[in-house]
Amino acid sequence: MLLPFSINASPPFSLPSSNPSSVPIPPLRLLSSSSSYSSFAFSSSCRAAPCSAPYRCGRLGRSRASSAMENSAAASNLLFRQLFESESCTYTYLLADVGHQDKPAILIDPVDKMVDRDLKLIKELGLKLIYAMNTHCHADHVTGTGLIKTKMPGVKSIISKDSKARADILISGGDIIQFGNLFLEARATPGHTLGCITYVTGDGPGQPKPRMAFTGDTLLIRGCGRTDFQGGSSSELYRSAHSQIFTLPKDTLLYPGHDYKGFTVSTVGEEILYNPRLSKDEETFKEIMANLNLAYPKLMDIAVPANLLCGLQGAVEKTA
Amino acid sequence: MLLPFSINASPPFSLPSSNPSSVPIPPLRLLSSSSSYSSFAFSSSCRAAPCSAPYRCGRLGRSRASSAMENSAAASNLLFRQLFESESCTYTYLLADVGHQDKPAILIDPVDKMVDRDLKLIKELGLKLIYAMNTHCHADHVTGTGLIKTKMPGVKSIISKDSKARADILISGGDIIQFGNLFLEARATPGHTLGCITYVTGDGPGQPKPRMAFTGDTLLIRGCGRTDFQGGSSSELYRSAHSQIFTLPKDTLLYPGHDYKGFTVSTVGEEILYNPRLSKDEETFKEIMANLNLAYPKLMDIAVPANLLCGLQGAVEKTA
Repeated sequence: MLLPFSINASPPFSLPSSNPSSVPIPPLRLLSSSSSYSSFAFSSSCRAAPCSAPYRCGRLGRSRASSAMENSAAASNLLFRQLFESESCTYTYLLADVGHQDKPAILIDPVDKMVDRDLKLIKELGLKLIYAMNTHCHADHVTGTGLIKTKMPGVKSIISKDSKARADILISGGDIIQFGNLFLEARATPGHTLGCITYVTGDGPGQPKPRMAFTGDTLLIRGCGRTDFQGGSSSELYRSAHSQIFTLPKDTLLYPGHDYKGFTVSTVGEEILYNPRLSKDEETFKEIMANLNLAYPKLMDIAVPANLLCGLQGAVEKTA
Repeated sequence: MLLPFSINASPPFSLPSSNPSSVPIPPLRLLSSSSSYSSFAFSSSCRAAPCSAPYRCGRLGRSRASSAMENSAAASNLLFRQLFESESCTYTYLLADVGHQDKPAILIDPVDKMVDRDLKLIKELGLKLIYAMNTHCHADHVTGTGLIKTKMPGVKSIISKDSKARADILISGGDIIQFGNLFLEARATPGHTLGCITYVTGDGPGQPKPRMAFTGDTLLIRGCGRTDFQGGSSSELYRSAHSQIFTLPKDTLLYPGHDYKGFTVSTVGEEILYNPRLSKDEETFKEIMANLNLAYPKLMDIAVPANLLCGLQGAVEKTA
């Protein structure tokens, strides 16, 4: 079935109120959806007893999320790789729980032309790719999630419901993407596009320390994504960055969707101080964004229609 | 005085014989050279009692090196950044001991045109750059060490004695480059050029775990540097990689001098298995290297003469 699988549930839990911003972080929600993973070739057993399903994308109360991790190793078993595509200067991220018997892995923002590289690496590392995810519907390159699905049909594609793009799983802010005993929180960070998501590594025993945030184009190192199309809004982006990213611990490592100057990583503390746009007040920021005078992205008319089909276009083409 | 400052001493200590290769790892040597750092603006006091000088480039017996670290924090205070220059696909590495009061930092393989970016980042992070180092005399880009010295005269440039290039400090395999309570071992890895050095983070309490090796062009991710000029030798490179790099723990993180495919890091275990050249036997490797048919590097006639002056050309130009 090619229609996207959608997850919806009411949010039963709230985050602790550690957020100094007036904009609340949305509550995390639990959706158990193990029935949707019947096509996975993986064992459902889990080394850490409290974790009943090794691959689960759903919504989880903060206390539940911590509880699911507390029997895992004190040190994180995260395998992490940052990968670069030089034409659109896009970063793809590979994360895997190598402490779990199945070594489940996820890819964030794969690029179509680099899929062979990425899948070869995943094979060499002995990982099992379960999710191919996008932070948003890209305008500058074609996502690799569709191509990955034609090569590995068991992989599920993920994008936000607000992106209006198609994928196997549509998520919203507050969702949890679990791989083995590790997990990512999805934080809704609209502004560059309507459906931008920042994925943040979990908080709790066994999760990576410091935390890591995959910000897509919401926050770039010493910059941010443009806000002049695809439902972009400079005031939304400002609120997203300040409420959902700058409220993370200052040592949180920030991994952007692109970099054009050769940077690979920053931290929340650095960007609060030195981001030349987002360190300013909101009015100044909006003025900066209104006067960027950027060219129309050369691949936009190809990339956006393709990416609106996201994880499905490869399968659609194959069965057409 | 613009002549390079050279360090020489006899090697009093040997490494434990954990090296399975027939090619021995050269012994580490101790040279105390604090008098050469009188121009540094840093305090010579050190938070960890056994470390008498915070910035020291010398040679240290393995047992001595461990001893110098054993009172430092169990977790490493390493700040680490990987930086990219897209024209020559060169990686520059920034390392600093942020647990030390002076936050001493080093740069490995800075590129001339990216110096302003690198120094701005160092300033923003509140670090004190003490060494600008090269893994070898590059043929494809001009080192940034000379330019850095014109902008920050207290910084000392470092390159290997065998490179025949000029720098403030000429090192050899077995030398220790200390910054705060952290240190790098210099391992002689000739083959791409006569004077190639691989810098390896220290082994001991407070040092980063897993270890990290900055391999220059000796070992690239799933590849290696060419061996057809600058005293290159495929048999030497093969022996260097197998005796000095592949004998490190398999989880050692490998950071190359370049990458052309978008990889950022590998491990010893991966390269032993999957390096398409160096995983072969020596005869096959030599045959591969003899048939690469590579073009002459377009910047070679500019880069090599400039880089032979290494850390000094900026100062020479300034005083000419």
